[in-house]
Amino acid sequence: MRVVVPFAPERPKTRLAPVLDEAERVAFARAMLDDTLSALSTLDRERGVSVDPLVLSTAPLDCDAPVVVDDRSLTEAVNDHVPADDGDAPVAVVMADLALATPDALGRLFEPEADVVIAPGRGGGTNAVVVRAPEFRVDYHGASVRDHREIAREAGLSVAHVDSFRLATDVDEPADLVEVVLHGTGAAAAWLHDAGFSVVTADGRVDIERNSG
Amino acid sequence: MRVVVPFAPERPKTRLAPVLDEAERVAFARAMLDDTLSALSTLDRERGVSVDPLVLSTAPLDCDAPVVVDDRSLTEAVNDHVPADDGDAPVAVVMADLALATPDALGRLFEPEADVVIAPGRGGGTNAVVVRAPEFRVDYHGASVRDHREIAREAGLSVAHVDSFRLATDVDEPADLVEVVLHGTGAAAAWLHDAGFSVVTADGRVDIERNSG
Repeated sequence: MRVVVPFAPERPKTRLAPVLDEAERVAFARAMLDDTLSALSTLDRERGVSVDPLVLSTAPLDCDAPVVVDDRSLTEAVNDHVPADDGDAPVAVVMADLALATPDALGRLFEPEADVVIAPGRGGGTNAVVVRAPEFRVDYHGASVRDHREIAREAGLSVAHVDSFRLATDVDEPADLVEVVLHGTGAAAAWLHDAGFSVVTADGRVDIERNSG
Repeated sequence: MRVVVPFAPERPKTRLAPVLDEAERVAFARAMLDDTLSALSTLDRERGVSVDPLVLSTAPLDCDAPVVVDDRSLTEAVNDHVPADDGDAPVAVVMADLALATPDALGRLFEPEADVVIAPGRGGGTNAVVVRAPEFRVDYHGASVRDHREIAREAGLSVAHVDSFRLATDVDEPADLVEVVLHGTGAAAAWLHDAGFSVVTADGRVDIERNSG
């Protein structure tokens, strides 16, 4: 299945600015993309899921997958790639900042046979979606998980959900780094470790700390 | 399997004080407990999973399950119920504030045959755990998911994880209510709806809003 991975290589992850400078945010975002592509590649090689990745980038980029550059909004750019006609092949869209995604977690996306398969993100997002019907269009603005259910319902399409903490965890804010340090297994977790981040607890609350040494 | 559900009926969910007064927090916490017990009951009746619930409460309580009152710390109280000897039966511990928990999500806890099965919570918590080995003890202080892995590793026990967004979502803060409104299916979601809560989006960000009318 074609798997579209939207990515913004320039000025990524601005909400991480309190803990990472711009060059670090670029490197960390890139590590998360590499983890996603690596997990998809493992699915294809080892799990019998045929995956044909395509990075949909807002700027030119070198990486381990074909790249299409499209600097329009996320919604517009993605909608150029989902099925438009009855004969079109299914397409998956997987965000590039799912730093906990593993081949097992991503593989669950491809199990349900529904017209639309949604992996909700925290805070109302849609972190991954499989689209098998040309009547469906993505709309990433606002509480997209609600809008995507509604778009499918209005078109009479079947919807399945993937209940995954790993796929629900997109990394936008400093608090999200706690999850990467505790549960990450790839390049993004290694990058944070090398940058001196660890998890600390104070008064029973869990937080991220950076070793300045 | 014995399923222990710790619950604090008095002064619950203080971090929800910005949006719910004390009487409301008591009612909402109770709705979440009722949802948990209802989902466990459905598992037992309809899914072939034998569930024997026990509410471990810090104060006397009437509810649809047997209650033991224990006002010690969560860790101490729970450790009185996990297996202590080789012949003891397995025990599950499920938090009472998993407002998205469904029979399907809770049922996944009982699938792996590992000595210890962990459903991580956001922020380093352990939202549910199945304990089959007397060498294991819970420790809910701090980043408990890390500590629980370490306790199991030191005792040479096998560990499995349940990757579930529904089980990872415990409800502590106002932002968590967004998840309940968007994904909840039980009494807690209905309670929030009746109390006037809905999800709104502004500038692409998702937030909770209360209708004062």
